[in-house]
Amino acid sequence: MNHFPPRIRQLIDDFDMLSGIGPKHAARLAFQILSDKARGKRFADDLNEALASVTLCRECQTIAENSLCEICGDKKRDQSVICVVAHIQDVEPLERTGKHAGTYHILHGMVSPLEGITPDHLTIKALLDRVKKNKVSEVILALDVTSEGEATMLYLTKILKDLGVNVSKLARGIPMGSNIEYTDEVTLSSAFEDRKKM
Amino acid sequence: MNHFPPRIRQLIDDFDMLSGIGPKHAARLAFQILSDKARGKRFADDLNEALASVTLCRECQTIAENSLCEICGDKKRDQSVICVVAHIQDVEPLERTGKHAGTYHILHGMVSPLEGITPDHLTIKALLDRVKKNKVSEVILALDVTSEGEATMLYLTKILKDLGVNVSKLARGIPMGSNIEYTDEVTLSSAFEDRKKM
Repeated sequence: MNHFPPRIRQLIDDFDMLSGIGPKHAARLAFQILSDKARGKRFADDLNEALASVTLCRECQTIAENSLCEICGDKKRDQSVICVVAHIQDVEPLERTGKHAGTYHILHGMVSPLEGITPDHLTIKALLDRVKKNKVSEVILALDVTSEGEATMLYLTKILKDLGVNVSKLARGIPMGSNIEYTDEVTLSSAFEDRKKM
Repeated sequence: MNHFPPRIRQLIDDFDMLSGIGPKHAARLAFQILSDKARGKRFADDLNEALASVTLCRECQTIAENSLCEICGDKKRDQSVICVVAHIQDVEPLERTGKHAGTYHILHGMVSPLEGITPDHLTIKALLDRVKKNKVSEVILALDVTSEGEATMLYLTKILKDLGVNVSKLARGIPMGSNIEYTDEVTLSSAFEDRKKM
C-alpha cells in the first residue's frame, strides 16, 4: 500500500490494527469509508460520541454509558448469582436463552501463558470483591471450551471455593443438530459422563 | 445487540455497514476500539483528516490527496497506455509486476445488471475523455475473470474500438504453482488456445 498518500495509508493502518482484519481488507474498508464522505464523517462522529460517553460498568465490567449497565442496574436481576464470561459479546447469546436471572461478570480475556496473559490481566479482583460484597451464592463459569478457557476455569474454581462459594460450569454434551457419527470423542465422553435420566 | 446503550449500538451498526464485516465481528470491533480510548480517538482523528484531504485523481479516478495521484503526476509514466481496473486496490498487485509503464484508470465497479450497476455508474465517460485527449494508443483491460468482468470488458472493447484504440486484455492461463490435475477446464482451454511457442 506504499503508493497511497500518507493520510490514507494511516487510515489503512488503523483498520489493519483491528482484530480479524488483514491488510487487504483494511485497504478496502478505508477506500469504502472515504468514498462516501457524508457517511465517513458520520462514522467519525459516532465513534467520538461513543468514546466520550462510554465507561465500564462498576459491577460487571462491561461497556456501558453509566456507572451501572442495564443488567446490573436492573433490580429484578438476582445479584447473588454471577455468570462469568470472557468477553463482552459473550453476554448476548447467553441472555437469549432466558435461563439466567442473575448478573454477569466480564473477565476481558482468559488466562493464556503463551500470550503472556496472567490472571492479574483479567478483572478477577473485581469479581472477588463482588462475591464478598453481594453475598454471592453461586458463580457459573461460561467460558470457551479451549485450553485457555479450561485453565481460567480451574484457576477461578480454586480461588472461589476458598471463599466458600458454589462454583459451576455450563454442561458439556452433544450440541443441537449434530450427528453422533460426526461428534468428536471428547464431546461424546462428556455426554456419557453427564448423561441425564429420562 | 439490543442490550447495549444507543451510542454503542450506533457504532456497531457503522462497522456492520462496512463490506466483509458481519454483525458479530462489528460488535467485537466496536468493543475493541472503545476499550482503548486513546487509540479510538486517534482512529477518529485519522479518519477525519483523511476525509478532509482526500479527493479523486482527475485523470485515473483513484483516491488521492491532490488533483493528480502519484502515478498520473509522474512525468516518466507513459500517458498513451492506460490499464483499466475495477477497484482502487487492484492497482497495487499490478504495480508490483513492474510490467506496466503507463497509467491506470479505476472504473469503481463492474457492469452488473443483477445488482443494477449499468455502464453509466462507472467512470467510463472519464476514460473516453482521457483516450481522446491523451492520444491513447492502447487500453489494457485488467478486470476480474468473472461474468461481471467479462461483460464490462465486452462493453469497453466495443466503444473503445469505435474510437480506433488498440484494446487488449490480460492473458488467461494456468497460474503459478498449480497442478494440471486440479486446474479447471475453462482455464485449461484458455491455456491451450493461447499456448506459447518454446
